[in-house]
Amino acid sequence: MGSVDASETTVTGWAARDATGHLSPYTYTLRKTGPEDVVLKVKYCGICHTDIHQVKNDLGASKYPMVPGHEVVGEVVEVGPEVSKFRAGDVVEQYCNKKIWSYNDVYTDGKPTQGGFASAMVVDQKFVVKIPAGLAPEQAAPLLCAGVTVYSPLKHFGLMTPGLRGGILGLGGVGHMGVKVAKSMGHHVTVISSSNKKRAEAMDDLGADAYLVSSDADQMAAAADSLDYIIDTVPAKHPLEPYLALLKMDGKLVLMGVIAEPLSFVSPMVMLGRKTITGSFIGSMDETEEVLQFCVDKGLTSQIEVVKMDYVNQAFERLERNDVRYRFVVDVGGSNIEDAA
Amino acid sequence: MGSVDASETTVTGWAARDATGHLSPYTYTLRKTGPEDVVLKVKYCGICHTDIHQVKNDLGASKYPMVPGHEVVGEVVEVGPEVSKFRAGDVVEQYCNKKIWSYNDVYTDGKPTQGGFASAMVVDQKFVVKIPAGLAPEQAAPLLCAGVTVYSPLKHFGLMTPGLRGGILGLGGVGHMGVKVAKSMGHHVTVISSSNKKRAEAMDDLGADAYLVSSDADQMAAAADSLDYIIDTVPAKHPLEPYLALLKMDGKLVLMGVIAEPLSFVSPMVMLGRKTITGSFIGSMDETEEVLQFCVDKGLTSQIEVVKMDYVNQAFERLERNDVRYRFVVDVGGSNIEDAA
Repeated sequence: MGSVDASETTVTGWAARDATGHLSPYTYTLRKTGPEDVVLKVKYCGICHTDIHQVKNDLGASKYPMVPGHEVVGEVVEVGPEVSKFRAGDVVEQYCNKKIWSYNDVYTDGKPTQGGFASAMVVDQKFVVKIPAGLAPEQAAPLLCAGVTVYSPLKHFGLMTPGLRGGILGLGGVGHMGVKVAKSMGHHVTVISSSNKKRAEAMDDLGADAYLVSSDADQMAAAADSLDYIIDTVPAKHPLEPYLALLKMDGKLVLMGVIAEPLSFVSPMVMLGRKTITGSFIGSMDETEEVLQFCVDKGLTSQIEVVKMDYVNQAFERLERNDVRYRFVVDVGGSNIEDAA
Repeated sequence: MGSVDASETTVTGWAARDATGHLSPYTYTLRKTGPEDVVLKVKYCGICHTDIHQVKNDLGASKYPMVPGHEVVGEVVEVGPEVSKFRAGDVVEQYCNKKIWSYNDVYTDGKPTQGGFASAMVVDQKFVVKIPAGLAPEQAAPLLCAGVTVYSPLKHFGLMTPGLRGGILGLGGVGHMGVKVAKSMGHHVTVISSSNKKRAEAMDDLGADAYLVSSDADQMAAAADSLDYIIDTVPAKHPLEPYLALLKMDGKLVLMGVIAEPLSFVSPMVMLGRKTITGSFIGSMDETEEVLQFCVDKGLTSQIEVVKMDYVNQAFERLERNDVRYRFVVDVGGSNIEDAA
């Protein structure tokens, strides 16, 4: 419980008050700007599926009021005396800190942390990266989570070599970045989906090389042992064995969906081809800087729908039924943030 | 169905006739010695848990009569005209071929393949390795499966660096070789077991550095995030999450038990520390040669109980209840193989 202090800055964010997850304006104070802190005025903030899990208490650890939002792009308006990396006017990002989460956590001063659906944030400079020239700030937002989330495991597991054959399971915010990033690395990319519904957008809009319907046993059998990796973005319980069967020897199934129900497989499915089930969670600060530059270099953009703050509840609902191509980004800076819808 | 041919050699092995798995003498003919084939007179053959799975049809694909046995050490008695690697008198091993299994499979000539609990075998020279000087043949047998099974993943996954912290889950034929091989690589080795029963043998006989009782929640919590890898030799359904929790970031859980029932875990258990669930199945011919030389160089021996052929059914029963320290090896050459017990 932070006590009221004249030096504290009051801000307004959109907070959930309970597990209904409904967001509405909420006024709170920022922590004092520490020596290594950066204060940023929020410009854009992407909406990630994790934000839904958090506001609805799907993982059982939510505290309210909670201002979600972790794909934050803002302008630096103040820096602490020991901040050397940034100065006021820089356009930057706040990256999910693994130690103290950007929201639904408690800072060292005892104050709850709050996310990017708010007029301003205070962030340690370690978790801030500069947006490179040539990248629009609203374009940058989804790269800070969805982009680095797919880039990081491809880099870490040695999967950046051109010519690899990759699978992208699930075509949401992370999946669509997966197709784009993997194509930019020179991979042959197969989108795997439960029905034919997304075939045209996968092949024509996103440039995938192949499309595989997971409910079609013949197609799945024909594609057995053909992929070097699968980026599995499905955020709900699903069988792993059909996808393990698609992997070549030494192939890797990389899980990205935070799923509370257990996933299962039989051991010979990994043993016989020395296959790997692993997962990855966002990425490092270095990787975040790299993926931003990678996207500038490759001319790669995310596909987004920009909305105002007062649309956030509808956007959450639409995301929950997968009705967005492919990421919502809230124009926080251009919204009248203190007015409820 | 091979037709009778005067040039075919008749041999006797011990075969299961049905899923009771009971073995008794069975006479059959070897395939004709092909240009690249090696005929070996069997000296020793180890008993592996997979042999039990096979004779009892646990995996649902067994064909009878079936002569099991794949940890085979023998003496070369004949070679085909294009065999250059070996000559009569060499002491060699037959290694599990991934394409045509050493038993419970069908060779290119239509003949069922039969294993090493038999007076002789014919094997392609590609799947035969020379036993290095300094290694007793009965000692070599368990290294050909249990030894290379633990050596191969440690090598493949970059886990041979001295100073690593490894866990060995399950202290049977493979597990005890795991402790010895990992110790010889300079690792700090923790044996993980469901009770305190094997503490003394793990620490005193095998030289493990630590012993962890998996049913003790306090011990398990204290050991969280402490291991670079776990070699999981448990051949039955078991939870994975308690062991994933023991791994450091980027740690690897390597499954070695062929288990028909699904194993499960929740995705954050692998995502948050980028942990890996994988498996490994025996190893390559090069790795088999390497592990034999590794054992000679390090003075490392397997701990075995040598029995005669007519004890094989009792040995299978004792192995099934884990009543062996740690591997049975049948002295096939020294047994009167044609007499049932």
